[in-house]
Amino acid sequence: MTLPSSMNALILKHDGYGNTRTGAAIDTLEPYLEYGALPMPKPRSGQVLIKVRMASVNPSDLYFIKGEYGQPRIKGAAAGFEGVGDVVDGKGLYASYLKGKRVAFVGGVNGSGAWAEYIVVEAAMCVVVKQAMRDEDTAGHVVNPVTAWTMFDIVKASGSKSFVFTAAFSQLGKLMAGLSRDNGYAMIAVIRKESQAAHLKELGAKHVLVQSDPEFATKLAALMKSEKPRILLDAVANQLSADIFTAMPARARWVVYGKLDTEAPALSEPGQLIFMNKKIEGYWLMNWFRQASIFTKLKTLRAVQDRFIKGGWRTEVVATVRLADVMRDLPEALKTGDGKVMIVP
Amino acid sequence: MTLPSSMNALILKHDGYGNTRTGAAIDTLEPYLEYGALPMPKPRSGQVLIKVRMASVNPSDLYFIKGEYGQPRIKGAAAGFEGVGDVVDGKGLYASYLKGKRVAFVGGVNGSGAWAEYIVVEAAMCVVVKQAMRDEDTAGHVVNPVTAWTMFDIVKASGSKSFVFTAAFSQLGKLMAGLSRDNGYAMIAVIRKESQAAHLKELGAKHVLVQSDPEFATKLAALMKSEKPRILLDAVANQLSADIFTAMPARARWVVYGKLDTEAPALSEPGQLIFMNKKIEGYWLMNWFRQASIFTKLKTLRAVQDRFIKGGWRTEVVATVRLADVMRDLPEALKTGDGKVMIVP
Repeated sequence: MTLPSSMNALILKHDGYGNTRTGAAIDTLEPYLEYGALPMPKPRSGQVLIKVRMASVNPSDLYFIKGEYGQPRIKGAAAGFEGVGDVVDGKGLYASYLKGKRVAFVGGVNGSGAWAEYIVVEAAMCVVVKQAMRDEDTAGHVVNPVTAWTMFDIVKASGSKSFVFTAAFSQLGKLMAGLSRDNGYAMIAVIRKESQAAHLKELGAKHVLVQSDPEFATKLAALMKSEKPRILLDAVANQLSADIFTAMPARARWVVYGKLDTEAPALSEPGQLIFMNKKIEGYWLMNWFRQASIFTKLKTLRAVQDRFIKGGWRTEVVATVRLADVMRDLPEALKTGDGKVMIVP
Repeated sequence: MTLPSSMNALILKHDGYGNTRTGAAIDTLEPYLEYGALPMPKPRSGQVLIKVRMASVNPSDLYFIKGEYGQPRIKGAAAGFEGVGDVVDGKGLYASYLKGKRVAFVGGVNGSGAWAEYIVVEAAMCVVVKQAMRDEDTAGHVVNPVTAWTMFDIVKASGSKSFVFTAAFSQLGKLMAGLSRDNGYAMIAVIRKESQAAHLKELGAKHVLVQSDPEFATKLAALMKSEKPRILLDAVANQLSADIFTAMPARARWVVYGKLDTEAPALSEPGQLIFMNKKIEGYWLMNWFRQASIFTKLKTLRAVQDRFIKGGWRTEVVATVRLADVMRDLPEALKTGDGKVMIVP
């Protein structure tokens, strides 16, 4: 197969980190990205070249292009962390084996990214997906679902059959709702809008608390007593998160995996760290990938795929934007609803 | 031996917790304690009756009598957590063995406390001390020294040869200074007054930072680079502590073991929990006593005693107050200097 010598992509305009702290919200991409041509990326040993079918848009992508994520940007590289595509070239044993296969992937290398026609990734960061899986489920198959699965493992290890989840109407929150119900765990979902409550309960959340509810603190206190959750999974890290943590029982752990709010949370009861054995920590999927054994990874990825294929999870796509239209249409598409936005070449 | 039927003690005036958050500082004891007679406490099975020689005054005692500690008060009980004395009665095998021996002890039971002529404690919370140990070193032999020793174990397990210590001119800070020097660790001591620096360095602190120094942040940043500490041992838990934690390198752990300041610290960089794998937790000696094996405990207590006997540690007593004079003299005695205050019957 003859490959073109260049391809279209959404290209980062800046190096390193931004000085802003604005969160995942985005009104325009102009300051950060441009649509244009890049040379076709080339796989090195242990890497594969993938023709992208579909890329997902995660909050981490938006943080990243603004320079607000925990990794520095590279000017001139393509944006996008995750997607699905067909392997067209590969160097090395496993890479060659992947040729011709449809794979889910994360993490472009050599200046490539998923918001492009082609991407080069480490073969080890590819997962061959079963035919029964839709592209829509596959494109967002690693970051959110594997995060949900591995964070649920934290809940299971906590010794409580309950946990608290903030910003729970996110893609991740919806995945957690199903996992918790099917495993007999009580998810206490904290959401912004009353209108999100019914759908989240339908997906599996046992309790739903609306932030603006004047009875929020009372209801929260009652649930802390009845359900005794020990894990707070938190993408917001603002004062509300800190106050929920303070309301939680002894041995509670506040696990921060995102920073949606720019407010700095204050710890009103540091004494709880001492006398109630509470802890505050972070969760990052990349650390899991670095630390988990290959056996754990394969088991987890297979379980995630099986759950999609059996219909336990289904990715709710609210908009699909063509690569050439991303600059114009993506900010608006991200505002259309509470599901996933996909990019197709 | 015939024992009297009553004894003098400093008696708690209130039950449960106070609603204040004023810290360890104390101007008057009147609202919290009264000096008076209590019935002689009686040991039950597994407990011993001790004739107190000397009791120590720790910050935790002061927090406790104000109802600001992590344990509820019992109205009518004697105050005081720690001291040294002679076992005069005991029920049970080990308790009987202790009879006639001089012991260091923590934690009164059955409404008794160390700020009294007699105290009943669990035999398991007594340590027989070698004759070579002075009463002054023995009376404060468990809470601070064992805390220092076990917190130093946290430092040793951190993988860095350096650590940060706030409010470092405390009794605990002085103990840590010697431990760190003798074990080849670089203690970065944060203190309030320049005048404390020389003595702390002499005791073993490698670096001393004065909070009010206009160059504090710059000097701190330089030490973070050169020494790469991973543990912040913190008795203050205010904004300065939070800012030090933020300045620390990846995998740093903020270990809160006290709350000297009433300010609620704000976490300006929660993203560090995620991407830099930082953690916030507490340390409480009681948890160590609950969780450590008897072997670990004995080994630790013997090591602590040996260090005192060999002169590696020496308790600096700035005032000794008679039990009958505590109400009048203790608040003033606590202000006289930076060493330990003792109570004698």
